[in-house]
Amino acid sequence: MAHVLGISGSPMEVSRSAVLLGHVARILEGHGHTVDLLAVRDLPPAALLHADFSDPAIRDTIERLEVADGVVVATPVYKAAFSGLLKAWLDLMPQFGLSGKAVLPLATGGSAAHALALDYALRPVLTSMEARHVVNGYLVLDRFIESPTPVEPSPTEAPVNIHADAAPALGRVLDSFLEALGSRPRARPAA
Amino acid sequence: MAHVLGISGSPMEVSRSAVLLGHVARILEGHGHTVDLLAVRDLPPAALLHADFSDPAIRDTIERLEVADGVVVATPVYKAAFSGLLKAWLDLMPQFGLSGKAVLPLATGGSAAHALALDYALRPVLTSMEARHVVNGYLVLDRFIESPTPVEPSPTEAPVNIHADAAPALGRVLDSFLEALGSRPRARPAA
Amino acid sequence: MAHVLGISGSPMEVSRSAVLLGHVARILEGHGHTVDLLAVRDLPPAALLHADFSDPAIRDTIERLEVADGVVVATPVYKAAFSGLLKAWLDLMPQFGLSGKAVLPLATGGSAAHALALDYALRPVLTSMEARHVVNGYLVLDRFIESPTPVEPSPTEAPVNIHADAAPALGRVLDSFLEALGSRPRARPAA
Amino acid sequence: MAHVLGISGSPMEVSRSAVLLGHVARILEGHGHTVDLLAVRDLPPAALLHADFSDPAIRDTIERLEVADGVVVATPVYKAAFSGLLKAWLDLMPQFGLSGKAVLPLATGGSAAHALALDYALRPVLTSMEARHVVNGYLVLDRFIESPTPVEPSPTEAPVNIHADAAPALGRVLDSFLEALGSRPRARPAA
Repeated sequence: MAHVLGISGSPMEVSRSAVLLGHVARILEGHGHTVDLLAVRDLPPAALLHADFSDPAIRDTIERLEVADGVVVATPVYKAAFSGLLKAWLDLMPQFGLSGKAVLPLATGGSAAHALALDYALRPVLTSMEARHVVNGYLVLDRFIESPTPVEPSPTEAPVNIHADAAPALGRVLDSFLEALGSRPRARPAA
Repeated sequence: MAHVLGISGSPMEVSRSAVLLGHVARILEGHGHTVDLLAVRDLPPAALLHADFSDPAIRDTIERLEVADGVVVATPVYKAAFSGLLKAWLDLMPQFGLSGKAVLPLATGGSAAHALALDYALRPVLTSMEARHVVNGYLVLDRFIESPTPVEPSPTEAPVNIHADAAPALGRVLDSFLEALGSRPRARPAA
Repeated sequence: MAHVLGISGSPMEVSRSAVLLGHVARILEGHGHTVDLLAVRDLPPAALLHADFSDPAIRDTIERLEVADGVVVATPVYKAAFSGLLKAWLDLMPQFGLSGKAVLPLATGGSAAHALALDYALRPVLTSMEARHVVNGYLVLDRFIESPTPVEPSPTEAPVNIHADAAPALGRVLDSFLEALGSRPRARPAA
Repeated sequence: MAHVLGISGSPMEVSRSAVLLGHVARILEGHGHTVDLLAVRDLPPAALLHADFSDPAIRDTIERLEVADGVVVATPVYKAAFSGLLKAWLDLMPQFGLSGKAVLPLATGGSAAHALALDYALRPVLTSMEARHVVNGYLVLDRFIESPTPVEPSPTEAPVNIHADAAPALGRVLDSFLEALGSRPRARPAA
């Protein structure tokens, strides 16, 4: 089975995108994959903002990215794009740090008017890092995610409900991601 | 005359985009405008990354943005887009925080292949903040900026040279910005 | 007063974006400006698609663009971007054919999920043509435009109603465009 | 083996992007795949520009797209984006017309400054059509393509040379496309 890194890019402690990521992580685990969850807001702020590549916590995340077969990125939409916090972390990763990996981009936002932010803002960045396959992503409206709680995303937390208006589309992008994970070449190219 | 906020979005202490910003600031001052320089990397990292709107240093930057007639944004290009550090700060500003303001986007990068990052990645974000006029921007190749030094950008630092291959185009976008500053309505709409 | 070229980019004979353009044209005329309306679908198809710069009708549109102080572009949103018909015409215009001009981008679409197409897809193209000022644009939902009729847009056609949910925002971008028209330099730079 | 539709989006009779497409088609055939080449400029111009879905030639291209397992799109870069001619054809295809298909985007242009047009302008459109996998694309500089000749792209035409500075990167995106073709699900979802 595959190993997936789930990255939460919200700067907020109580975050719908983190809840969404936890929800997706449990589904991936239900399919037999292992999931490592990373909340960027828990990294050392000064190291992150000053691009301190030598910081042990930053180096640790580079290694966690390197060993992943697939990556799920979850971000809120702010100012017509993904979060600056997420980009600050991506800026510290190797230029081709997504090489050989399948990637699922997810977002949360208050309005459908933000829907294209995933494809126009986030996807080009992921593509520039040489992702093997960025599958179709999905923006879940805030009101379709129940009960965000002030805890870190975790595979063991209580399940959340995704509203019936969003669940089928979320299921489809998850299916694409699961398929992309399964089709990975046995010997992946070096990152 | 107008008052301009110059924002340096580089996470690095030694930064060509900060040098470029200082260079532009001196030219603006030569035209009689006042310039306030803000290096995002000097803000409290934890407040910035955790979206702590109540932090005094963050609130101070909101006020400095509010009183500006124009804004110059200078960023390196990383991963086909502008810096995450810059976006983390923009994420903390009011949704329509650029309302009524003229904006000049500038970037530095190692290759002309990054040129479209200004128009496809940064401009939509600035537009979403209701900037009155985002003038044409310019990406200056790293090799065209001489002598970055490990000091904060300052109007009083020694002048730098912009290579003759980049100076005319930089001059044109500066002219557009100066014109946009001059055409501002006397009573600007409330943000 | 200023002279404005209004460009309808819809391939359809019955077009909400053409109706929207006609509506905006009448308002501009009410402010004393002159408006020249161009429906790209009326140009010779073969000349347009084969990039025949020598075709008289194509050359005529280059001249009509050249003498305009401002440009209003109206397009439907298809496939997350503006119409191919509009782009086929823009492709035939001079590289810096919008130099010195104010530009107002407008779109129509069935869903708010298309809203960012203006800023992420159309605006970079307009900016690459060296527009002096691309003001904030607006996407009007199809259902907010009453009674499209199978006639070409015309300043003399019967007025249409824009729904109260869309009218204020449309009014604001029109105000910005009117202001940008008024602030044009007396001696515009050569294109 | 797979069946591939190669789409040439250049409005020009003599076209480097069409030459590039022919070159890629021969390589794909060398791997045992079948290739159907479509030059959009050969379609009936009026039907294309007036969105006449009932035109037999347009309907024929819808069917040729439908039966393809993979698609190669080749376009020149004009005005910071892909050709309007290509978009005019895509506008006529079904909303989810790329469902289940692998897609390779290719471009030609005079300057590396156009490189991001593929990822920021074309890829979001392809993604909106529900492509199963849009692999990394590549912009080949005009000067790296030898000897465009005024003939339609064809698998039987004389081979062209791709300059050594561009060939390795082109080879890599082709490898990704070949792999994506091979990993297609046996029972593809209905478009």
